[in-house]
Amino acid sequence: MRNYVIKGNICYSRTSKELCIAENGYVVCKDGKSAGVYESLPRIYEALPCYNYENKLVIPGLVDLHVHAPQYPFRGLGMDLELIDWLNTHTFVEEARYADLDYAEKAYDIFTEDLRNSATTRACIFGTIHADATLLLMEKLEDAGLTAYVGKVNMDRNSPEYLCEKSAESSAEDTQKWILDSRRFRHVMPILTPRFTPSCTDELFEKLSGLQKRYRLPVQSHLSENLGEIAWVRELCPGTQFYGESYDRYGLFGSSCPAIMAHCVHSGEAEMELMRKRQVFVAHCPESNANLSSGAAPVKTYLERGIKTGLGTDIAAGSSLSVFRAMAMAIQCSKLRWRLHDQSVSPLTVEEVFYLATKGGGEFFGKAGSFEEGYEFDAVVMDDSAIRHPGKLSVRERLERLIYLADDRHIAAKFISGRVIFRER
Amino acid sequence: MRNYVIKGNICYSRTSKELCIAENGYVVCKDGKSAGVYESLPRIYEALPCYNYENKLVIPGLVDLHVHAPQYPFRGLGMDLELIDWLNTHTFVEEARYADLDYAEKAYDIFTEDLRNSATTRACIFGTIHADATLLLMEKLEDAGLTAYVGKVNMDRNSPEYLCEKSAESSAEDTQKWILDSRRFRHVMPILTPRFTPSCTDELFEKLSGLQKRYRLPVQSHLSENLGEIAWVRELCPGTQFYGESYDRYGLFGSSCPAIMAHCVHSGEAEMELMRKRQVFVAHCPESNANLSSGAAPVKTYLERGIKTGLGTDIAAGSSLSVFRAMAMAIQCSKLRWRLHDQSVSPLTVEEVFYLATKGGGEFFGKAGSFEEGYEFDAVVMDDSAIRHPGKLSVRERLERLIYLADDRHIAAKFISGRVIFRER
Repeated sequence: MRNYVIKGNICYSRTSKELCIAENGYVVCKDGKSAGVYESLPRIYEALPCYNYENKLVIPGLVDLHVHAPQYPFRGLGMDLELIDWLNTHTFVEEARYADLDYAEKAYDIFTEDLRNSATTRACIFGTIHADATLLLMEKLEDAGLTAYVGKVNMDRNSPEYLCEKSAESSAEDTQKWILDSRRFRHVMPILTPRFTPSCTDELFEKLSGLQKRYRLPVQSHLSENLGEIAWVRELCPGTQFYGESYDRYGLFGSSCPAIMAHCVHSGEAEMELMRKRQVFVAHCPESNANLSSGAAPVKTYLERGIKTGLGTDIAAGSSLSVFRAMAMAIQCSKLRWRLHDQSVSPLTVEEVFYLATKGGGEFFGKAGSFEEGYEFDAVVMDDSAIRHPGKLSVRERLERLIYLADDRHIAAKFISGRVIFRER
Repeated sequence: MRNYVIKGNICYSRTSKELCIAENGYVVCKDGKSAGVYESLPRIYEALPCYNYENKLVIPGLVDLHVHAPQYPFRGLGMDLELIDWLNTHTFVEEARYADLDYAEKAYDIFTEDLRNSATTRACIFGTIHADATLLLMEKLEDAGLTAYVGKVNMDRNSPEYLCEKSAESSAEDTQKWILDSRRFRHVMPILTPRFTPSCTDELFEKLSGLQKRYRLPVQSHLSENLGEIAWVRELCPGTQFYGESYDRYGLFGSSCPAIMAHCVHSGEAEMELMRKRQVFVAHCPESNANLSSGAAPVKTYLERGIKTGLGTDIAAGSSLSVFRAMAMAIQCSKLRWRLHDQSVSPLTVEEVFYLATKGGGEFFGKAGSFEEGYEFDAVVMDDSAIRHPGKLSVRERLERLIYLADDRHIAAKFISGRVIFRER
């Protein structure tokens, strides 16, 4: 049943400056897409079934542009290190466990169930180098009704022996087989996922470039997260002017495919300009950038320059799977960046982070993340009655408050492309 | 019944560097105080009733050194301003509502119930200028079994007419009456609460100094939170070398009474030195300092110099009443401070923030915030089973994870000075 009406306080972004609210309004789902938001229901839709969420908030599903599913077990742990040491000490050890499908089964069950119960409707997810475990993850996400891009990770250098693919060739072969195997899913799609430049040889990048062209896949990776990492890439890639070029020279930086680059904390002018030109998506991961002492990205600058930007939770460098928490942290980190570092870049507003978490990131999936007509019908119904208040708040205030205070208890219902994920908790 | 044993994984701080864990251990409550932590239960305690929280974590109750109860309704709202504008635009308007006891009744019910359900066992709380509403708050806290210092706020200048006491004299009179009225409470105690230097005349400070000496009360206020505020104090108090002197010259800065100063984001060398000498407690409020773009306090420096320090949630400049979230934010903000501003002050560790949230802040209440022998028996039992993991974690890891991920769903039981606040949810 993909034609229905939802009644409630409808909130959505048109731009990063414009938050639209229809109090006691209606949003119509037709064939899995939004047929628009209405103050009063047009007669042609009166015959449709109506889910009445009067007094609750109805927002577009949130989009997580960067999350590592296999790292979910160690979220909130071991964050006393910077990126490269953190990878070697904690991350690679955990990811190696996914060679064992029994472990993957248990771990991905937990991840999928928690993601299903969250306000996230769409996500771009890293798996591990293991094709079988990654397919298992994709199957679980598909069964849960979620929409996602999922990547089998590629890494054939500078990685511990237990988590290093034998050669560029075997990495590419495994990847090709995985791409073909993943054709059976409807809502979960493959995305090329070279971990990051330090862990991929030129030969591997070349082969991935070939696969990209052949299967027309999007790409996700990491960019300019940490100063040590950036210096290392400079060493590894003589002839490049900046980190982004290490992807761009293989067509993996938006020139021949949509690309998401996580972090972009320390991107310089030239890198930003190429990101803009190539329409590369920045996955801004504020909690991760704080936890690993990476810094704080100049997100306002990205928005002002028209660089496509969304939010990522970046489990497990970020501890929380909640995109609400990522929104709050995005504001908070932008304020600390302004105060402590650079007063030329102003802090983010509520309107801007709500846009980033919905329409900003949603654009990677096409028309998603808003209730404007023609957008995928991804909706989350928020019941904030447990966040009690002695008086009365406006819908705008209730939405703002949820950014700071929401957790999965407040999510009353969830819909993706019109599919009902759940309607009661 | 104040003599019993709790069995579980007992975690507590001895110092800011030393986290003690007794796995499957025992902590004994005798007459409301800890009789020590044991790996196996000494025979003399075998006859005591035992609450078996096997497999759960048992930690000292958390201490919130700075929270504004009347601001609880607007937590998570209106944080696009810096301190002084935020006070004038949002805070004073809300606080004025507490002239109405019906509103205060509703609002303080919500605050008290949420505080009771949190992991906080002791708190230092700001009320408003209204003595009646403040007594109402104290009564509710007392009825809930919580231990707290609560202050009727003093402000007789630079405040909007609707929230400004008529004169220093009437402010002091109201305060004296309130002090006497509050004698009826057992666990909730009065604390002198001049809002901050800009809102108190010299005459008012003098009178409060008199009340302090007469009733031997501790003091709480704000210090060096925001650069504009500091410049204003410099103007208002010619002859002072730094903000802290504006309290010190009236004996309200630790010389004749224990004092808590919230924030201390921008304290200079001389102020720090006086804080150390006077044993002033810093209430570090990281989320507030991010939300109001105040900055990030050099907490590691405070610890290294032996300045007494604890954590505050600072509702409503902080959005969350959870001291766990304050712990996570304290680490995160210290990392951003290190990365963006000053690499001479290293980030906080898990051990340090756990200490700050328990024994560090607890010291303001005497021997509180630890399970060492003789400490007040404040305990919180954490059930982290809902934060699922595919493998097995150590107790240390489970505690670390809770700092980032705990909410009130994970609190299974709570005890204060041996009193049972709740034992089931």
